[in-house]
Amino acid sequence: MPRHCRARNQGAWGENLTVSSGWVGRGVVGAGWEGVGGEEGAGGGAVAAPESSSMVFLEMDDLKAFRQWGSRTPGHPENFETQGVEVTTGPLGQGFANAVGLVLAEKHLAARFNKPDITIVDHYTYVILGDGCQMEGVANEASSLDGHWGLGKLIAFYDDNHISIDGSTDIAFTEDVLARYEALGWHTIWVKNGNTGYDDIRAAIKEAKEVKDKPTLIKVTTTIGYGSPNKASTHSVHGSALGSKEVEATRNNLLWHHEPFHVPDDVKRHWCHHFDEGASLEAEWNAKFAEYEKKYQQEAAELNSIISGELPSGWDSALPKYTPESPTDATRNISQQCLNALAEVIPGFLGGSADLASSNMTLLKMFGDFQKDTPEERNIRFGVREHAMGAISNAIALHSPGLIPYCSTFFVFTDYMRAPIRLSALCGSGVIYVMTHDSIGLGEDGPTHQPVEQLFSLRAMPNILVLRPADGTETPGAYRVAVINRQRPSILALSRQKLPQLEGTSVEGVAKGGYVISDNSSGNKPDLILIGTGSELEIAAKAADELRKEGKTVRVVSLVCWELFEEQSEEYKESVLPSEVTSRISIEAGVTLGWEKYIGQKGKSIGIDRFGTSAPAGKIYKELGFTVENVIATAKSL
Amino acid sequence: MPRHCRARNQGAWGENLTVSSGWVGRGVVGAGWEGVGGEEGAGGGAVAAPESSSMVFLEMDDLKAFRQWGSRTPGHPENFETQGVEVTTGPLGQGFANAVGLVLAEKHLAARFNKPDITIVDHYTYVILGDGCQMEGVANEASSLDGHWGLGKLIAFYDDNHISIDGSTDIAFTEDVLARYEALGWHTIWVKNGNTGYDDIRAAIKEAKEVKDKPTLIKVTTTIGYGSPNKASTHSVHGSALGSKEVEATRNNLLWHHEPFHVPDDVKRHWCHHFDEGASLEAEWNAKFAEYEKKYQQEAAELNSIISGELPSGWDSALPKYTPESPTDATRNISQQCLNALAEVIPGFLGGSADLASSNMTLLKMFGDFQKDTPEERNIRFGVREHAMGAISNAIALHSPGLIPYCSTFFVFTDYMRAPIRLSALCGSGVIYVMTHDSIGLGEDGPTHQPVEQLFSLRAMPNILVLRPADGTETPGAYRVAVINRQRPSILALSRQKLPQLEGTSVEGVAKGGYVISDNSSGNKPDLILIGTGSELEIAAKAADELRKEGKTVRVVSLVCWELFEEQSEEYKESVLPSEVTSRISIEAGVTLGWEKYIGQKGKSIGIDRFGTSAPAGKIYKELGFTVENVIATAKSL
Repeated sequence: MPRHCRARNQGAWGENLTVSSGWVGRGVVGAGWEGVGGEEGAGGGAVAAPESSSMVFLEMDDLKAFRQWGSRTPGHPENFETQGVEVTTGPLGQGFANAVGLVLAEKHLAARFNKPDITIVDHYTYVILGDGCQMEGVANEASSLDGHWGLGKLIAFYDDNHISIDGSTDIAFTEDVLARYEALGWHTIWVKNGNTGYDDIRAAIKEAKEVKDKPTLIKVTTTIGYGSPNKASTHSVHGSALGSKEVEATRNNLLWHHEPFHVPDDVKRHWCHHFDEGASLEAEWNAKFAEYEKKYQQEAAELNSIISGELPSGWDSALPKYTPESPTDATRNISQQCLNALAEVIPGFLGGSADLASSNMTLLKMFGDFQKDTPEERNIRFGVREHAMGAISNAIALHSPGLIPYCSTFFVFTDYMRAPIRLSALCGSGVIYVMTHDSIGLGEDGPTHQPVEQLFSLRAMPNILVLRPADGTETPGAYRVAVINRQRPSILALSRQKLPQLEGTSVEGVAKGGYVISDNSSGNKPDLILIGTGSELEIAAKAADELRKEGKTVRVVSLVCWELFEEQSEEYKESVLPSEVTSRISIEAGVTLGWEKYIGQKGKSIGIDRFGTSAPAGKIYKELGFTVENVIATAKSL
Repeated sequence: MPRHCRARNQGAWGENLTVSSGWVGRGVVGAGWEGVGGEEGAGGGAVAAPESSSMVFLEMDDLKAFRQWGSRTPGHPENFETQGVEVTTGPLGQGFANAVGLVLAEKHLAARFNKPDITIVDHYTYVILGDGCQMEGVANEASSLDGHWGLGKLIAFYDDNHISIDGSTDIAFTEDVLARYEALGWHTIWVKNGNTGYDDIRAAIKEAKEVKDKPTLIKVTTTIGYGSPNKASTHSVHGSALGSKEVEATRNNLLWHHEPFHVPDDVKRHWCHHFDEGASLEAEWNAKFAEYEKKYQQEAAELNSIISGELPSGWDSALPKYTPESPTDATRNISQQCLNALAEVIPGFLGGSADLASSNMTLLKMFGDFQKDTPEERNIRFGVREHAMGAISNAIALHSPGLIPYCSTFFVFTDYMRAPIRLSALCGSGVIYVMTHDSIGLGEDGPTHQPVEQLFSLRAMPNILVLRPADGTETPGAYRVAVINRQRPSILALSRQKLPQLEGTSVEGVAKGGYVISDNSSGNKPDLILIGTGSELEIAAKAADELRKEGKTVRVVSLVCWELFEEQSEEYKESVLPSEVTSRISIEAGVTLGWEKYIGQKGKSIGIDRFGTSAPAGKIYKELGFTVENVIATAKSL
């Protein structure tokens, strides 16, 4: 069942809200659940109703296995462990920014696909967040953006319980939260009795829905551990179980006399009527979509591709093609050609930059800006908000399999968005990170803007592809890999400076992560292997030319993506880097740590084990040893 | 000259404000300077007057060498390149949070050392920030904290020029900034003509100084590229030079008829009178301090140690001592003993946690909380604001050489504060990062909270020490290293779970980064070397015991700090890891990439090349192969 229908099947709090931040389960269903969740690591939970088809429902035994090995109820909700969990929101603030991404996706698709006579995309996004989320900078970035965009279908419940892990929020958090949100362009409501004021909560949701042009923050003042006679309103119920004695006291206090893990029939009935309701809503939507498919064939085909994630056939032939004769160009410029080519052929391709579009070269020329009054457009202006950009992009990708978001900043500022990048990798969100100015080659801005350790720090992360293409052949090759990999993110590290088109580079080679671009030896045993990536592959190629003139047999290997190379067969890897050849040099404008893996103990690395410096790029390259001469000298020293 | 005097020597904007964000130099002094700076990478510049002694003044030739190799005027101001630059603020938002740290340091020292009859610490902190800084989450975190703390001596100028790199701020930033700051507890003022309204600016500063209990944000509406007839108010003056034609037009427009790089005499005179003014203020302060030293000897000694950075003799003997007979304990608990011991003996030792004090075990028991009304206390409650915590800590360390800040969160959340950690390393700020819950050993919270790649991603960073101590001997050893290293930060990766006290660990060994804790071979050629760090050193030690029973000679090496080990002599390194011994196994609960450096191509790594999972810690350790049995099996497979 497509999410657009499924997500419509969302009602008000207390109706069919099923999964929320950090397994907020403060009721007394089972002994293992009391006092669980709240803010710790909650991250704000963007929520949706469970899938009604192919759904593996959680059973009572799953609840009993809470936080156990292999359980479907892990310590924090994970989209890859439990059906119905849409995004993994563990670290604080992430889920809130995810919610902005989900509501953006809805608004964009609604603007593109709804018709005057058929509304096919139409859902709200609800999020519950606590004091911890509110303190995180990423939440302010995301709420500033949502206020700017006026995404009115976001309804956020701020659980104002005055308690965080270190005790009362008075010790570190005394700002006027509602006033801040008003300044950010939000509609705000305060429900003063969140413990039992169900009608007030319902009224707040109704009011929020009436405000169409602004998101709404509902501050819901609650008591943490409500019902526990001795621990309510203390941080001791934040992340720890109540203990059997206090559970007993709480049960008595709340007049709850059922056995642990027993759900009374009337409660069960109340919840289960949502199954029928959901099924009927689904049937209604399916009928409407059938009509839509008849009336609006082209749009329906596009929307189906976004819902299914199926790429249009032959999409990758749109990517630009370079030959060794093509002029020099920066890979960030080639990247822009790729982005524009992909946006032409992939209906769900969209993205933007953190206020560096003109430097990152990420504008889609055939589209305008996604803005309040033009949500059908595809250039997203994130402002200088890298952290929110990453979290919003994660959610766009998770909203619909065919939405392929890219986002962009200088490579060094992956440091500002490391948390959402990690979540892309963990929760299988195929975001394309377009990271330009990928080395000291950016020049004058100096060491704060020059990445040196970022390549390795990202290669260390599981389930992510780090691609550093060298030219106009490898860059489209890298995009091809990034688009195909919908279950893991890709980092594209791209040059600011112009680079030549090399002999021997190939799209197929990129898909294997590492490959031989040239070799003048006859068999599989050259005298020397030079391994380069990105902008330094040129230096390796030129040094090889020189060394060959002196009679050496030299192989040049492009190791454009370590992760893909590691996934190749042992035979293939051996064919590229034969173990017999121990004379190896790596050349990469980054730290050398980690290169031991490929150069072995007899090889040498030309890299940068220090921070960069401010000067013209060419000068820095020369001073730090990224020259053909230095490669040759190093080769002779082996 | 101590900063407390120097910093007092700060006046109003237009008087002796000398260095600001991103070299904001929009005047027309020299052709190389026009249109430079603004927001791009500016980060908000915390400013102070230049040092009046041992000062290397910038010369006109330095200005001419702007952004050139070896220049003292690099692309962004760096505290390690140019005298008078107090903090390196390149990436956006950092400088603003730094300013909060500087004003916190002043408030704290003033509260501790000023006397009713002698005010010895008394300075303002000024910061200039742009739209880009305002958009960054870290700025909101820092301003929320400053509003909470009521640090009234912070005066921030928000350069409201409506332009960022991608064009008008209307495309991504339409919030009501002043209203947001009011919600955060700030006093706000709007100067509508920032181009020529000098009197309004002076009046705003006067008003800001009168508000003692709140920081002040002065929104100064300006025209970017003011004076340039064709490029003013456009993003084309943001980060690019005007070009000679437009420079000429601007000169004519502003009636500026001097040669490039010529400073007219009257301007020079106006600026130079600050030398005398500064010298006289310095003399005044020195006299006052001499009196203070006589009247308040103990306080003066403490303050002198904070000003000079000289550690009290024998300080490290206060650190706790463990023996192999001592009970098991988590290194986070041992860390708390160290923190409390150090705070007793080091006057400038202070810090806190991002709302995890009770989990990180970072409370200083003999002190209360640094709060609005108790600024003399030393426990800083950062709230859930990791990014600002790092940037504030950087500035505390840079404020006075003897201020030694520590800050703390779960190790995985170094991802949230990677940018300020990098700046600690780059600008030589000796912050102590107390990072607990350092592996899958944290258990139930699951993969979003379990670091696996963080050790390696931080080891890749230049000029930082990553220490992962194993027990009650290595943890104090790690603190000793961290305290001594005032010019680079230390990351202490500490366990949540209890660990035994090991035979053979030593404080001296930690200082060398890597050392042998046990070996049953007679010479320097054991059959096998097991290398462990932190919580896995125990497994290595136990596996060695078992293997020795089977007649093997086994060495166990603790590689507690790779960076320090690399700094040892080749002889020492060879004595610990003899190249002849190629049977090596590393055991560390993190990714294996990078371990090739020490295990070589014949060794094996026991690590985690995936994300973790939610379950009790012991179960995860067992399932992922961190067991004595697996080490033994791996040893036999070599």
